Amino acid sequence: MTLTAADAHFAARLQALLPPDTLRPVQPRYLEEPRGRYHGQCGVLALPRTVQDVSVLMAQAHAARVPVVPYGGGTGLVGGQIMSDGPAPLVISLERMAQVQGVYAQENVMIAQAGAVLADLQARARDANRLFPLSLASEGTAQIGGLLSTNAGGVNVLRYGNTRDLCLGIQAVLPDGRIWNGLSRLRKDNTGYDLKQLLIGAEGTLGMITAAALKLYPIPAHQGAALLQVASPQAALDLLSMARDLWGEAISAFELIHGQGLRFLAETLPDIRQPFAQMPDWSVLIDLGLSQGQDPMQGLEQLFERAMQQGLADDGVIAQSLAQRQQLWTLREHIPEANRKVGALASHDISIPISRIPAFLVQGQELVAQLGPFRVNAFGHLGDGNLHFNVFPPAGQTKQDFPGMSAQIMQAIHDLVHRFDGSVSAEHGIGRLKTGDLARYADPVELSLMQQIKTALDPHGIMNPGAVLLLPRSAGTKKLQ
Amino acid sequence: MTLTAADAHFAARLQALLPPDTLRPVQPRYLEEPRGRYHGQCGVLALPRTVQDVSVLMAQAHAARVPVVPYGGGTGLVGGQIMSDGPAPLVISLERMAQVQGVYAQENVMIAQAGAVLADLQARARDANRLFPLSLASEGTAQIGGLLSTNAGGVNVLRYGNTRDLCLGIQAVLPDGRIWNGLSRLRKDNTGYDLKQLLIGAEGTLGMITAAALKLYPIPAHQGAALLQVASPQAALDLLSMARDLWGEAISAFELIHGQGLRFLAETLPDIRQPFAQMPDWSVLIDLGLSQGQDPMQGLEQLFERAMQQGLADDGVIAQSLAQRQQLWTLREHIPEANRKVGALASHDISIPISRIPAFLVQGQELVAQLGPFRVNAFGHLGDGNLHFNVFPPAGQTKQDFPGMSAQIMQAIHDLVHRFDGSVSAEHGIGRLKTGDLARYADPVELSLMQQIKTALDPHGIMNPGAVLLLPRSAGTKKLQ
Repeated sequence: MTLTAADAHFAARLQALLPPDTLRPVQPRYLEEPRGRYHGQCGVLALPRTVQDVSVLMAQAHAARVPVVPYGGGTGLVGGQIMSDGPAPLVISLERMAQVQGVYAQENVMIAQAGAVLADLQARARDANRLFPLSLASEGTAQIGGLLSTNAGGVNVLRYGNTRDLCLGIQAVLPDGRIWNGLSRLRKDNTGYDLKQLLIGAEGTLGMITAAALKLYPIPAHQGAALLQVASPQAALDLLSMARDLWGEAISAFELIHGQGLRFLAETLPDIRQPFAQMPDWSVLIDLGLSQGQDPMQGLEQLFERAMQQGLADDGVIAQSLAQRQQLWTLREHIPEANRKVGALASHDISIPISRIPAFLVQGQELVAQLGPFRVNAFGHLGDGNLHFNVFPPAGQTKQDFPGMSAQIMQAIHDLVHRFDGSVSAEHGIGRLKTGDLARYADPVELSLMQQIKTALDPHGIMNPGAVLLLPRSAGTKKLQ
Repeated sequence: MTLTAADAHFAARLQALLPPDTLRPVQPRYLEEPRGRYHGQCGVLALPRTVQDVSVLMAQAHAARVPVVPYGGGTGLVGGQIMSDGPAPLVISLERMAQVQGVYAQENVMIAQAGAVLADLQARARDANRLFPLSLASEGTAQIGGLLSTNAGGVNVLRYGNTRDLCLGIQAVLPDGRIWNGLSRLRKDNTGYDLKQLLIGAEGTLGMITAAALKLYPIPAHQGAALLQVASPQAALDLLSMARDLWGEAISAFELIHGQGLRFLAETLPDIRQPFAQMPDWSVLIDLGLSQGQDPMQGLEQLFERAMQQGLADDGVIAQSLAQRQQLWTLREHIPEANRKVGALASHDISIPISRIPAFLVQGQELVAQLGPFRVNAFGHLGDGNLHFNVFPPAGQTKQDFPGMSAQIMQAIHDLVHRFDGSVSAEHGIGRLKTGDLARYADPVELSLMQQIKTALDPHGIMNPGAVLLLPRSAGTKKLQ
């Protein structure tokens, strides 16, 4: 299986088949990714305006064996959007296909093209008195096509699920250029295999999502939040159970915050107001979205009292207004920025069966301590079992002082995660960064099934080569036998 | 691709490889289905005790090109569990693999073998103070393996989703006998393609699910229900929007009931108490599961008053106790039995984009009136857009009085559903009954993708041949080229 570069000859052929101005000069932003680990290349950059144009692009790439890299908002953290070696690819961005094609408020459905930016979709839903609950740090840039292709998570997964769970149907162009129209608004449809699930989360390796029918929700009548100091991660879990007894699924988010994160915030972003005089080792941010007639403040006070009685919590702040709720979220949302300013040696986007998280945190911190005098900031979406377990050099030192240590830490932590039946990529995906991890940790039957699916749908291997699945040569196996 | 019957020779080979007593004499119940449309055949019946035994069975069938029919609780309504022609199959029932392997209350997860019966799973969840929300008429018999394989729906889909949405991971045996261990308890895991989604809803045509990790939920603190007379289907939808404004996702079910259904109940099951003196043309059963501190009765009264003010509802019964709530549900749950006693000419399990349902009901009834003096009972899960649109002979006549009419009605209604962008199988699946419908109505690209996946995973076509996808000869195409 040899792929061919998207060269001038290929560009000329496309030019003849597509509306003028579809191909564009390459700009640096299509070759970069947020963490600066990968630098891309691009033979031809195409910004199609219609699904038919996408179809032409893919059919031509298929015929000429030209690799295709689908480029969304470019916010992915694992290099899925960057192909840095091999033949120069055709990069396709759907940024000109960003229309909301319909909002069906009574159905709680919105149909949007893949290039639509998440924040715009949230706003369109709000205009119709509805909630599109997907929410994450990059929402001002990330596009729904990329969010679906990576099955993005974010802060509201506990209540509303991952992006996969918010999708009713998709339109997509398959690797050979065929257009699949699966843009259904139906809640229930058991007519054959649920194929959209394959393209969702496939990180552009099985085709290109061009539009989606998305679920909307009622906007909760009352919102509330509290930041509670908890005695330990186990106490945080017990608090979650207690909160679920009170509110069922109305808990929108349940985020664990580590004392190290608060200290990093204080050092690097001192303007952000910290609610506690003494920084607690562990605290949780609880966010509620309640129905009419329910009082979040009163309920959170009740929760806090019970938690105090049972020794789970010892101090806390309950937001008295939406502005105060926003302040608590500002704290949580700036932890990643503080981390970046401090400079991590190794970042891990992991999930663990929820009840095993306390044991994992103990063992993870012991493991890191054995490797060196490092600092750990373990925080994240506790309600989903998803933590960002990040390891930092000691104060006054940097990553450069510990050559080779990043990979060593990462492998040690990932091995531990695997022993805990966890995932080494809870929400960021595999991209190109974690193909080795997938090959190492995946059930071998599952991995070979993925290869079978990839070969069946993309026999020439043009779609985002090197993402998710190792290329045949690197894997040491032949793709076709 | 020629398949071979599961003959005595094949049985002897299995006998030598499997624990004694794995193969069993065939009993009639494995050859029957509830509606009596199909009668099965069986070369060998196997009741394995372990996933390894299932693996041996499938590997042998794969090697010998013997068709395999996975048999669950046998409650499916579209013949997916019955292979009535072709070479006699190996029928595999997992009824001996019915253990709950773990209940993780803090994680809201339960792991069960595929043969576990739904009612038992509900009870096990309740014992742990949790809810397993899947609920449907056949829950005393249906097994979780079959429920997953058919992506079953039921009465709580509005709030909790289809069976697919309740599954975190599966263990399965692939058509070639390989065991795939994907029994994850994780809420978030973005490591490669989400392959469980392929086997879920594939009706046993891509492999056999042997165990599953299932989502549990908190038990709602307060339950309530009301049956409200509404002016029209449109009024019912407006009432749904109003209810969602009040309670968000806490509405567990929102069921449309047709006057015809109440009249059938009165005729055939007169002991069931009817709440209204005058049978209304349309009514809705609203079921709520609320959090602590919320009063369902008070809320339902508020809803009823608002609905009266806006002319949406004109009479209603609000359950004053759990016993009264159960009475309302008894009414709803006996409508299918009343239908069976009357004897339908044609039953349709359809879904329509929710906002288009009122128009569909008008056109559907007009269409039926053009075909003859028939009676329509259109009822079901309005909140999901899923209706059972069933057509009956006039009073005093039976199906036999209208030869050939069933197929004619069915095709006319399905054509109409297709024009409304609906589904001709919302929750029952394709089985063998609707393979023609799938071939007729599916997007051709989607259908060919299904074939590609089937060929990739089950190259010899042994798994449940003739279900979901038409057999190559009937479809007039060659399977392998």
